[in-house]
Amino acid sequence: MSTMALPPCPIPIFTTVASYREWRHKARMQGKSVGFVPTMGALHEGHLSLVRGSLAENDLTVLSIFVNPAQFAPHEDLATYPRTLEQDLRILLEQKIQSPKSSELRSASAVFLPTVTEMYPLGISQDVSSQKGTFVEVKDFSEQMEGKTRPTFFRGVATVVTKLFNAIEPTNAYFGQKDIQQALLLRRMVTDLLLSHPSPQNLRIIPTARDPRDNLALSSRNTYLSTEGRAVAGTLYKALKTVQEAWEQGKTKAECIKLGEKIIEEVKEKSDDVEIKLDYIEMNDSTDFEVLSDGLTKVSCSSGYREGEGGSPIILSGAMWVDKTRLIDNILLGDSSQIVR
Amino acid sequence: MSTMALPPCPIPIFTTVASYREWRHKARMQGKSVGFVPTMGALHEGHLSLVRGSLAENDLTVLSIFVNPAQFAPHEDLATYPRTLEQDLRILLEQKIQSPKSSELRSASAVFLPTVTEMYPLGISQDVSSQKGTFVEVKDFSEQMEGKTRPTFFRGVATVVTKLFNAIEPTNAYFGQKDIQQALLLRRMVTDLLLSHPSPQNLRIIPTARDPRDNLALSSRNTYLSTEGRAVAGTLYKALKTVQEAWEQGKTKAECIKLGEKIIEEVKEKSDDVEIKLDYIEMNDSTDFEVLSDGLTKVSCSSGYREGEGGSPIILSGAMWVDKTRLIDNILLGDSSQIVR
Repeated sequence: MSTMALPPCPIPIFTTVASYREWRHKARMQGKSVGFVPTMGALHEGHLSLVRGSLAENDLTVLSIFVNPAQFAPHEDLATYPRTLEQDLRILLEQKIQSPKSSELRSASAVFLPTVTEMYPLGISQDVSSQKGTFVEVKDFSEQMEGKTRPTFFRGVATVVTKLFNAIEPTNAYFGQKDIQQALLLRRMVTDLLLSHPSPQNLRIIPTARDPRDNLALSSRNTYLSTEGRAVAGTLYKALKTVQEAWEQGKTKAECIKLGEKIIEEVKEKSDDVEIKLDYIEMNDSTDFEVLSDGLTKVSCSSGYREGEGGSPIILSGAMWVDKTRLIDNILLGDSSQIVR
Repeated sequence: MSTMALPPCPIPIFTTVASYREWRHKARMQGKSVGFVPTMGALHEGHLSLVRGSLAENDLTVLSIFVNPAQFAPHEDLATYPRTLEQDLRILLEQKIQSPKSSELRSASAVFLPTVTEMYPLGISQDVSSQKGTFVEVKDFSEQMEGKTRPTFFRGVATVVTKLFNAIEPTNAYFGQKDIQQALLLRRMVTDLLLSHPSPQNLRIIPTARDPRDNLALSSRNTYLSTEGRAVAGTLYKALKTVQEAWEQGKTKAECIKLGEKIIEEVKEKSDDVEIKLDYIEMNDSTDFEVLSDGLTKVSCSSGYREGEGGSPIILSGAMWVDKTRLIDNILLGDSSQIVR
C-alpha cells in the first residue's frame, strides 16, 4: 500500500501510525473528540450509518480501511474480498451531517489506511500455528455462534481491533449490530483490558442496516451473490423473524428454531438455480453467550434471569450459505437498548 | 484489598482504575511525564533501582503493587509469595533524587494497588483451561528459556502488563534485566500492539541489582532461602560468569555451557544441607529468542549475524533450584546497550 499511489482526497489519508499520531495529538491539544469507524473497506450503507453515528457524536471522525488477514482462515475469501478504495472515499465524503454546535456541515476528517506490515510488524500468516508475535483472545466468548465454524476468527478480530484502538485512540468507536458477537466480544475485551480509548460505554453498537426490499442485512459479501442468490438471500432474516414471532407467542426455544429452519427448508426446496444451506439458528444469552436450553420460553426467561425486567437481551442469530457466500444476521429479543446504543 | 485498611501514606494510594485516572488526567493537563514501575511488592534494591531510574527521567513516578494470579501456575507459590505492603511503602518513599529541573528532591508520586477484581473483572483462575475473558499472548517468544518450564507464565505477564499499561498510561515504564525474557517480550508486545504508552523505546530495561557479597541477583523470592541455601545461591551467577569467560576465549557454546554446569555440579556435591538442582543454562538470540547452535563460537557469531558489530546481543541465561526456591539470572553477551537502556 505504501508504494501504491493514493487517489486524490480532500482529507488526509494516513498510511502509518506515526503520521496519524501527529494528527491525533493536535486533536487532543484542541480538546476535540474523535469518533472511529473501523472497516475492511467495500463500504455500504451499513458502514455509512456508523459514519453518521460518529459524525453526530464527535468533533472529528476517522474511518480505517484494513482487510485484516488474521481474521480469515486459509480457506476463506481474503484474496477475493472486495477492495474498492476510490469508491469508498467518494461515498465516505458524501456523508455530511449538521454539526450540533454550529451551522457547518460535518464530514469525515481522516482515513487510516495502514499496510499489513504497519499492523503486523513481524508479518502475519493465516495459518495460526505459524503465527509469530502478539495476539489477543477473549476466552469463553469466541467459541459460540460465529466462533463455532470460524474457530480463530475472533482471535484475529480482537487482535487487530486492539491494535487499531491503540493506534487511533478514539473517544468513541462504532460497530454494527449485524456482527453482534464481534461487537459484544469487543466490549468485553475493552472492559477486561482496562482500555480508556474507547471506554466500554463508548463502544457504540448501531442497528443493522437492511435492504428495504426484503430486509437483507447489508454486507460487503452481498456483492458475491448471483441474481438468483440475491433473490433468496432475505430468507435468513425471514426465518429469524418467524422465530421471533413464535417466541413472542410463548413457544419453547426448540419449537421456535424448528419453525425458522422450516422457512429455510421451504425456500431451499423451491430453489433450483441456487444452493441454500443453513449453518445454524441459535439463541444465546448476550452477557456470556451461553446457549439457551431448548425448553425455555419467553415467560420462563422473563421470570428468571434473562430478557426480563433489567435482564439481558437474548441474541437470536443465524448463518446461512447461499452458494459460496455465507450470510449472517441477528435479532435481539428483550430490551435491546441495553446493547444497541 | 478494597475492604482492607490502607496504611497511612503521604502519597495517594489508588485502588481503582477510575480514581487513578483522575490523577493521571491532571498530570496530562499539566504536561507532566509519568514513569511507571510495575511490581508484585516485596520491594528490594532491584525494584528501587527501577524507581530511581524513573525518578531521574520523569516528572512523576507511579509504582504498582499487584501479585498477578495469572502468571502463577496452580502448583506455584501464589499463596506464599511475600506481601509486605507497609515496608514497601516506607522504602519506596525513602528513594529521593535531585530533580534535574529544580533544586527540589523527587520521590514517588503515587501507588497503584488494585484488587484482583479490578484487574480481572470476570475473576481469574490459575487453571488456564477454566479462564474466561481477555488474554494476551506473544507467540514464538513465550516458549523458550523461562517459558519452557513455565508454559503459561508469559501469557499471564503479557495480559496483566497490557492492562497495567492501559490503566496507568505511562510515558516511560521500567523493567529489570533480571527478567530479561519478560522485558524483551514486553517490548515486542508493545511494538506489535502499537502501544504509545509506553512506546517501545520508552520501555526501559535497567541492569540487574546484585548482592555485593556474591553477586546474587536480587529477587523477592530470595527471602525463601535458608541460611544454607543463601550461602550457595550465588553459584548460578558464578556458573554464568564461567560460561561468559569461556565464550570470550573462543570456546563453542556447548563447551561453555558444560563448564558452567560443572561449576554447579561441584557445589551440589559439596552441599549436604541444601538441595541444588540446575534447571538450565542456555544461550539465545535476543531478537527472536532462537537457541544458538552448539557449535557456535564468539568468532563465528561476530562474523555472522549475532553479537557482531551492529548485531544483537546474546542472552546467556540460567535457572537453578535451591531447595524449593527457583532462582534465575542472565548476562548479555555482546553490545548490551542495544537492550539495556
